[in-house]
Amino acid sequence: MEILKTYKYQEELNALNQALTRPFKDAKTINDLVCQIFINVRDNKDKALKEYAKTFDKTDLKEIKVTTEEITEAISSIDQNLKNAITTAYENIRKFHINQYNVEKVVNISEGIQCWRKNAPIEKVGLYIPGGSAPLFSTVLMLSIPANIAGCKDVSLCTPPNKEGKIHPAILFAANLCGVKNIYKVGGAQAIAAMAFGTESINKVYKIFGPGNQYVTAAKQLAIDPIWNLGLAIDMPAGPSEVLVYIDSSGVAAYAAADLLSQAEHGADSQVVLVSSNENILNEVRDEVKKQLELLPRKNIAEAALNYSVSVLVKDKEEAIQMINDYAPEHLILQTKEEDFFIERIVNAGSVFIGNFTPESAGDYASGTNHTLPTNGYARSHSGVSVDSFIKKITFQKISEEGLKELGPTIEIMAEAEELMAHKNAVSIRLKKK
Amino acid sequence: MEILKTYKYQEELNALNQALTRPFKDAKTINDLVCQIFINVRDNKDKALKEYAKTFDKTDLKEIKVTTEEITEAISSIDQNLKNAITTAYENIRKFHINQYNVEKVVNISEGIQCWRKNAPIEKVGLYIPGGSAPLFSTVLMLSIPANIAGCKDVSLCTPPNKEGKIHPAILFAANLCGVKNIYKVGGAQAIAAMAFGTESINKVYKIFGPGNQYVTAAKQLAIDPIWNLGLAIDMPAGPSEVLVYIDSSGVAAYAAADLLSQAEHGADSQVVLVSSNENILNEVRDEVKKQLELLPRKNIAEAALNYSVSVLVKDKEEAIQMINDYAPEHLILQTKEEDFFIERIVNAGSVFIGNFTPESAGDYASGTNHTLPTNGYARSHSGVSVDSFIKKITFQKISEEGLKELGPTIEIMAEAEELMAHKNAVSIRLKKK
Repeated sequence: MEILKTYKYQEELNALNQALTRPFKDAKTINDLVCQIFINVRDNKDKALKEYAKTFDKTDLKEIKVTTEEITEAISSIDQNLKNAITTAYENIRKFHINQYNVEKVVNISEGIQCWRKNAPIEKVGLYIPGGSAPLFSTVLMLSIPANIAGCKDVSLCTPPNKEGKIHPAILFAANLCGVKNIYKVGGAQAIAAMAFGTESINKVYKIFGPGNQYVTAAKQLAIDPIWNLGLAIDMPAGPSEVLVYIDSSGVAAYAAADLLSQAEHGADSQVVLVSSNENILNEVRDEVKKQLELLPRKNIAEAALNYSVSVLVKDKEEAIQMINDYAPEHLILQTKEEDFFIERIVNAGSVFIGNFTPESAGDYASGTNHTLPTNGYARSHSGVSVDSFIKKITFQKISEEGLKELGPTIEIMAEAEELMAHKNAVSIRLKKK
Repeated sequence: MEILKTYKYQEELNALNQALTRPFKDAKTINDLVCQIFINVRDNKDKALKEYAKTFDKTDLKEIKVTTEEITEAISSIDQNLKNAITTAYENIRKFHINQYNVEKVVNISEGIQCWRKNAPIEKVGLYIPGGSAPLFSTVLMLSIPANIAGCKDVSLCTPPNKEGKIHPAILFAANLCGVKNIYKVGGAQAIAAMAFGTESINKVYKIFGPGNQYVTAAKQLAIDPIWNLGLAIDMPAGPSEVLVYIDSSGVAAYAAADLLSQAEHGADSQVVLVSSNENILNEVRDEVKKQLELLPRKNIAEAALNYSVSVLVKDKEEAIQMINDYAPEHLILQTKEEDFFIERIVNAGSVFIGNFTPESAGDYASGTNHTLPTNGYARSHSGVSVDSFIKKITFQKISEEGLKELGPTIEIMAEAEELMAHKNAVSIRLKKK
């Protein structure tokens, strides 16, 4: 096994670019299955959901919606240390996200012309929380807190039940802490379909958020396909998670290795990239990765991811920032004394972790930033989830008679030049009045 | 011809909802053709673009990029009144949009933990400006101005040439005014393909903006399909343009009619909706529409759109706002003395025009707001184009050793509960150090 194979940035650019190409899956078979699930859920609603619970979750659901009793029970069953930790994370995430809610002032364009934007929450949003091996209650916080700050009225949360038809108490505790009332025991593509079409139990939503396996990803993509004409939005396109660590002589190899491994344990398709201008450091980190890997319970997953991992040897920090901006990492870790150089110049990244004491897991859980970030190079054009993701900004304009007298001729000339005479007439008819 | 057929809101809700269903086109044939165009442009680049110019634009292009001489010539050829009008619009749009650029402050989460967001312009953006019957220079302003304010480095503008291989001077004037340097004579789906893949002349971009016919729309949708793995974004999903006018006894029927017609002349698939609690007003507006229609040069187009137009008779303003929020109009015109009631309660709309002297065409051209707005019900989940559309917000976090000592246990507890031990270890290894 050759992990973190080193490429020289400019000299071996083609080979490096090939090694850095994000994994791409042909999703044809998955898409066909997901499409069947969509049609079944659209037509048979709750009945279809209960069938899928039997097939996929191996449970016989009586009620799809989680009851108040189940929530109360979950809250009392959960360990106090975990409660405290989730509550601390909740407070930090809330503190950071509330700062994102920006009310713009009214702009006086000229005498008699006022324009402004109003924040309107997306009324109905759907949050998907994966189940599977571990309960991702941290994602509950990352999606529910900004939804709550934005003022979304109707927040639905879907997550798969276990064989006993139960949701993990930490998920219920986190959802309850964030004020989410409508929690449904539905997972997979059928959960996305339920929120897209609505069923007897689950409200149709306007925007769907959250990570998931390849079926969930395919379902989110399908839900926004114009063929359904659903008018839906999703948070962002999905892809495997990734980290890029830049390290110079002021960094600590063991920390860099730990960060690379925390990314690698996410899944075999995780991308792990190490960048330095110092070959010795690259080797040190590689040795540390090998050492720490042996101690991990998810060693097999991490090892699979590391087989595709890459080290990049750059000449200097200028080459480093160029390489980083080209790659557009979801997570960027900067273990360097020249952090200001990078902070100033970084344009393509999801979230940036500065200094030796800011591991990626801080942002994954509790520093306050959001962990739902653009992967797969989408950091070139997308931001991570924030309060903005739950808000639309409606523009308003109010023009007085005097204002229109002044601006009217401008509109008339432009409309005429664009050969839109009814547009011109909507002004002329108002100016003629008196 | 029955235009603006009246439906009573609650009593005839099913028939009304059917009448209000947005037109939906099966795009299968178009998609196949657009897919062929994509493959041809990807593989043959400029050569393919020149072939398409011959086939579709009936012109033999020597150069795809507009030269400095052509821009100088355009500027000198254009009428001074039109220049002044475009410049006034430019200033108003700039004044409104610059207010959208918001720099957030750093949040001190707790001792030793700082988080913030930085605005990073999307580096490479592509703007599509339709040609066809009229030169849509207003759209040049609406897309280039926010791109410029955001700080996008590389702005490409594609628009189809005429038979003489020229671009309309008003488009070149507007683009030059907004500082757009790279203007290309390419239209249709091939323009979108060129910006998505890049050619010898045209840079690959990260996000594509702009309206267009059904081929352009299909091409934008195709460009973001995961099958190409291009990491691209588009401004928003497209649909036919639409207006909803609410009018009470304080409104003027002739103005309402003029606004409905200015929407109807956009295309036969435009949606035109009139809402009032007063049946007499509905009838008055209808009579005015018929009268004004006769005088329009684009009468045929407007008439076709009016065949699908709808009047809605509501009981009161409460029913009106409910109906409006359900429909989620792209443009909402409020001719009412109770404007505050509506301004406060509107949650689903693209842009709102308040009072008798604020026609839709004001916002289409020169009030300052953007005219690229969510159609097709997408106002439930999308905003119109703004400076935000050209910016990503990158999150940063910086934690000191002391800060991590404090927050570390929270992260460790949460990571362990999610069974991600490498995430926990990235903290533990840092805390063990000393």
